[in-house]
Amino acid sequence: MQDATQPQTAETAKQLPELFALLQPHLQALDEFMLRQIAEFEPEIREQAAYSIDTEGKRIRPSLIFFSGWQKSDEVNPDLVRLAAVVETVHLATLVHDDIMDEADIRRNRATVARKYSNATAVLLGDALFSHAVYLATRFPTNEVCRNIAESTRKVCTGEILQTMQRGDPDISMETYLRVIDLKTAELFRVACFLGARLAGFSSEYVQASGAFGRHLGIAYQIYDDMTDLFGAQEKIGKTLGTDIATGKPTMPLILMRDRLPAKEAQALRETINGTIEADVPYWLDRLREMGIFEEVRQAIFDEIEKARSAIAPHRSATAASYLQTISELLWNQVKAL
Amino acid sequence: MQDATQPQTAETAKQLPELFALLQPHLQALDEFMLRQIAEFEPEIREQAAYSIDTEGKRIRPSLIFFSGWQKSDEVNPDLVRLAAVVETVHLATLVHDDIMDEADIRRNRATVARKYSNATAVLLGDALFSHAVYLATRFPTNEVCRNIAESTRKVCTGEILQTMQRGDPDISMETYLRVIDLKTAELFRVACFLGARLAGFSSEYVQASGAFGRHLGIAYQIYDDMTDLFGAQEKIGKTLGTDIATGKPTMPLILMRDRLPAKEAQALRETINGTIEADVPYWLDRLREMGIFEEVRQAIFDEIEKARSAIAPHRSATAASYLQTISELLWNQVKAL
Repeated sequence: MQDATQPQTAETAKQLPELFALLQPHLQALDEFMLRQIAEFEPEIREQAAYSIDTEGKRIRPSLIFFSGWQKSDEVNPDLVRLAAVVETVHLATLVHDDIMDEADIRRNRATVARKYSNATAVLLGDALFSHAVYLATRFPTNEVCRNIAESTRKVCTGEILQTMQRGDPDISMETYLRVIDLKTAELFRVACFLGARLAGFSSEYVQASGAFGRHLGIAYQIYDDMTDLFGAQEKIGKTLGTDIATGKPTMPLILMRDRLPAKEAQALRETINGTIEADVPYWLDRLREMGIFEEVRQAIFDEIEKARSAIAPHRSATAASYLQTISELLWNQVKAL
Repeated sequence: MQDATQPQTAETAKQLPELFALLQPHLQALDEFMLRQIAEFEPEIREQAAYSIDTEGKRIRPSLIFFSGWQKSDEVNPDLVRLAAVVETVHLATLVHDDIMDEADIRRNRATVARKYSNATAVLLGDALFSHAVYLATRFPTNEVCRNIAESTRKVCTGEILQTMQRGDPDISMETYLRVIDLKTAELFRVACFLGARLAGFSSEYVQASGAFGRHLGIAYQIYDDMTDLFGAQEKIGKTLGTDIATGKPTMPLILMRDRLPAKEAQALRETINGTIEADVPYWLDRLREMGIFEEVRQAIFDEIEKARSAIAPHRSATAASYLQTISELLWNQVKAL
C-alpha cells in the first residue's frame, strides 16, 4: 500500500525526467507523422487543417499510448505512432468543436479555429479532422482500432452533450458529475491505454488492466482540471479563477459544498449556478477554503490515482506497467503542489 | 445513343413504379435497422438520437445502394442494409450540422435538431451520429467499408467548408462550383454505388462503373437541386424561390448569367451576390428566363445523367445496372417536369 499510494519523492525526482527523455523520440515521430497528414487533406483546406493540427499540445493521450505499449528496447513503434495520431486527432477535433460552444477566443496562445475562420468552418473542420482520424485508424490490418475509436468518440460526445444539458442545473448529483467526466474525459484516456497495450501485443490481462489504469487516471485528471478553476494561484495557472461558478457549471467542489452548506447559503449557491443571482465569486472561493473542500477533493483525486495504480499493480514487473506507475506520479505531484 | 439519352416514356411509366415496389422490403428493413440503432446510444441521449434518426427522408442514398448491389433474387441483403444505415447516418449527421450553419428552423416539417435542443447539442449530436456510423461500418469483416466512408466523409466536409468560404463571392468559376458539388454531394452518391456493388460481390469493372454512375448522378442531382431554387412553381416545390440570390450563393444558373450579362448588369449581379446591394429577386428570376439560362442548365443536367448512364452501359445486361439505368429516369423526369 505504502509504495503504491505514496511514491518515494527521491525516486520520483529521478525517474520522471528520465522517462520524459525516453519519450522524446516517440513524440518527435508523432509530430512528424501529424505534419505529414496535412498533405492528405484536399488542397483547398490544407491551411485550416494545418492550423488545427497544432503541435504545441500537452500530448497527454499520445504519451499514455507510448508508455502503455512500451517495449524493452525503447524503439519507436510505428503502430503506436499511428495510434497516437488517431487519438490526438480525435482529441483535436473535439477541442475545435468545444471552442465553438464555449465561445472561446484563445487556445494555446492562438485564436481558436472558430475565431480565426468562422463557427461554420470550425464545425466542418472538426468533422473533417474526425473523419481523417477514422481514416488513419482503418490503415491497421484489423477493424479493432477503428471500432474502439468510433465507440469511444461517441461516448466522448455523449459526455459533452450531457455536460451542455446540465449547465445551470444546481441539483446535479455527484454520481451524474462522475458519469459525465467518465464519458467525456476518462473514455479517451482508457482507450489510449487499452489500444496502446493491445498494439504492443501484450497479454489480454495486461491490456484490460492498462485500460482500467487509463480510465481512473482520466477521472483523476478531470477532477484535477475542474479543481484548478477554483483553487490555485491565479497567476500560475494563467486563468481566471471561478469561471465555472460564474457560468453555472457544477463541478465536484461545488457539489460537495452545496450538500454541506446551511440551507440559506445552499439556496444562494443554487441560484448562483442557475443564474438567478449574479455570482459573488470571491465569496464562494473563500467558503470553499473555509469548509475544507479543497482537501476533500484532493483526496478524491488521490483515491482515483490509487485505483489506477492498483489496476496495473499485478503487472508491475513489466516495463510498460512500471512506466505507467511512474507517470501517474506526475499528476500526483501536480495535485500535491496545488 | 437514342436509347441511353431518351428513355422510352412508356417503358419508364411501367418500370419505375415496379422498381419502387421491389425496393419497399429493403427500405423497410433499413427503417427497422435504424430504429434498433437508437438502443446502442447511451441511455441519456437516446431521445435526441431518435429525433435525428428520422425515417421520413427521401432515402436516395440507400436506394442507390440497394439498386447498385441488386441480386437476381430480390432478397434483402443484410450487408446492404447495414451499409445503407452507415451512409444514411453519415448523411443525417451532415444535415444536423448543415442546419446549424444555415440557421434553419424546419427540416421535413419538424424543428431542426439545433432549434429543438440547441446549437451546442446539434454539434455534438452530429458528432455522435457520425461516430456511430463509423462504428457500424467496423462490423464488416474488412476495413474497406470504413476506410471508404471515412474518406468520403472528409470530402463531403471539405466541400461544405469550400461552399461556406465561397458564400458572397461573386467571382466563383464554373469549375469551382462543379468541384464543390462533386465533393459535397456526388462523393456520397459515388461511395454508395461503389460499396453497394462491392458488397454484392460484383466484378471490379462493374464496381468502378457503378461508382462512376453514382458520382455523375450526384452531380446531376445537385445541379437540379440548386436549379429548383431559381426555377419552378413556388407552391409545388414548397419553398421560396431565389433564396440563393438573396443569401449570395452562386450556383450554376447565376454563374452562367453573370458571364453573359452586359457589363453594367453583370456588375449589379456581382454586388447582389456579395451583399453590397439588396437583392431584387424577381428581376433576376425574370432575367434568368429571358436569357434562356433555364434550358442551358437543364441540358447540363441531362448531359450529366447521360454520363452516368454511359458509365454502366457496358454492364446493362446485369440486373443491378439495368435498375440503375431505370432509376436515373426518375431524375430525368423530374428535370423535364420542371
